[in-house]
Amino acid sequence: MKRIFISSRGNPEHLAGLFRAELPTHEVLTAQPQPGDAAVQYIVVGRPSPGVIASVPGLELVVSLNAGIEHLLNSGEVPDGLPIVRLVDDGLALGMADWVLAQALAWHRNILVYKDLQAEKHWAPQAEKLARERKVTVLGAGALGMPVAEHFVRFGFDTRVWSRSGRAVEHARAFAGKEQLLAAVEGSDILVNLLPLTAETANIVDKTVLGALAHGGFFINGARGAHVVDADLIAALDAGQLSGAALDVFRTEPLPADDPLWSHPKILVSPHVAAPTHAHTAVKEMAENIRRFERGESLPHLVDRTLGY
Amino acid sequence: MKRIFISSRGNPEHLAGLFRAELPTHEVLTAQPQPGDAAVQYIVVGRPSPGVIASVPGLELVVSLNAGIEHLLNSGEVPDGLPIVRLVDDGLALGMADWVLAQALAWHRNILVYKDLQAEKHWAPQAEKLARERKVTVLGAGALGMPVAEHFVRFGFDTRVWSRSGRAVEHARAFAGKEQLLAAVEGSDILVNLLPLTAETANIVDKTVLGALAHGGFFINGARGAHVVDADLIAALDAGQLSGAALDVFRTEPLPADDPLWSHPKILVSPHVAAPTHAHTAVKEMAENIRRFERGESLPHLVDRTLGY
Repeated sequence: MKRIFISSRGNPEHLAGLFRAELPTHEVLTAQPQPGDAAVQYIVVGRPSPGVIASVPGLELVVSLNAGIEHLLNSGEVPDGLPIVRLVDDGLALGMADWVLAQALAWHRNILVYKDLQAEKHWAPQAEKLARERKVTVLGAGALGMPVAEHFVRFGFDTRVWSRSGRAVEHARAFAGKEQLLAAVEGSDILVNLLPLTAETANIVDKTVLGALAHGGFFINGARGAHVVDADLIAALDAGQLSGAALDVFRTEPLPADDPLWSHPKILVSPHVAAPTHAHTAVKEMAENIRRFERGESLPHLVDRTLGY
Repeated sequence: MKRIFISSRGNPEHLAGLFRAELPTHEVLTAQPQPGDAAVQYIVVGRPSPGVIASVPGLELVVSLNAGIEHLLNSGEVPDGLPIVRLVDDGLALGMADWVLAQALAWHRNILVYKDLQAEKHWAPQAEKLARERKVTVLGAGALGMPVAEHFVRFGFDTRVWSRSGRAVEHARAFAGKEQLLAAVEGSDILVNLLPLTAETANIVDKTVLGALAHGGFFINGARGAHVVDADLIAALDAGQLSGAALDVFRTEPLPADDPLWSHPKILVSPHVAAPTHAHTAVKEMAENIRRFERGESLPHLVDRTLGY
């Protein structure tokens, strides 16, 4: 009998119950296996404590509870030959899509501007634009970026998508690689970051990228805090180059109380909720990955260590 | 030479310039014709001052600057035999779609909840739901309601559409007529009103309809203030039956300073900006209606006085 160790710090018993229902022929553990125990082929992990992965005997596959796995690679906790599969469940992609569009449309249609005017009982229509009069750039064309870009297209935004490979999105303009980054963001009113965090993409949202946007633009970060040079972001907001930013992710989470991002008047902080893992859909996806692995099939979201995602 | 009188109180000269470019063989006036002047076949009006329409000699067609024309019918200013054509330009429908979805997604993803938490530097993820766990009912399946319902479907909301005729929207459930109204709204988390204002639909959003929604639901009004019994709305908000409402339209506009809607903590007031008329797209549509009229073709948005829209 194959064994699965649920190492989540969230609610491991809840996840274990869902795994048992999906994979009734497997044994599902929530207590840490000890060296010398019978083999545990699978570990289900979010952000494991140091040493946890190495302590599991006979491990064959690391099943990530997240779409972003840079912390697993950077920690050195996962031995080189051990495969990692990312969680890209449809709930994750759907949650990200409606969070990004919520932020983008709320900015586009001045919802917070009218809320401030309402406080003064001031009836003052702003110059409203049609979506097609706004340029949007989505950084990332993967499982998260692609559906987001498709929604922007459907609302009529002038949509550009930038990725490593230049993957196409229908009715959007595709840009590929570092040398096309500035062309992709040039003149955009809304910049959305949905990139994986790799050595190539860390600090990618810096003063050069922010400076290339249209004056008064808006930045939305649903990926990772380390993509952004925070000082450059704050400088762009203070200079009026950006009119606002919605940030769901930060270099340190929870965001420390003394971080200036908390109190900046043009920044919207949310506590890493854009694409929460929904246990039911996530476990279905993870269990299916385990079944595929056992049938010797390829895993669609197997991590490529040379790419870093 | 056929003549067009632009009677808008907004910026008639700007509209006139656009009409002259679209219809160079017509004469376009912005000064009020006098009885005894040569015939003026067309009047372009928003909310005309009393007597303006009657004063135009030889009038053949009233071209409305708005999608909603109940004020023209109710005023008695338009003689019975005189046709009225509504403005349903694509800019109007597109603007309404992104305004409604902005409000719905912002509520769905707790944007204002997190803004309040941010003011206290409180990192507190809320219980986030997937769109498919929320029911939405759109009242109205016309040029405005249809594309809005389609966006809700694409985000994965469990979508219902109610209209007089029960017009179908793909992947949404259709409901028809007064007798199916409560079934259409029963248990919905988000109620969107995009109905035309007629004798049948005035005061339709009342305590019965609001009471049928899911507890803690959200109401979005992009149509007309007179669709809503304001006292019932406020009572439902105060009782917690609704958690919020976004209102773009009011019985009196601008909303009077002493109206309790301004200061209700659960109401978002915007100043009738959801679907602003965009002059360029609107004039193209109105000019095309005049060309169709002159060719003797049917007009797609000709007002049916028995239906009231």
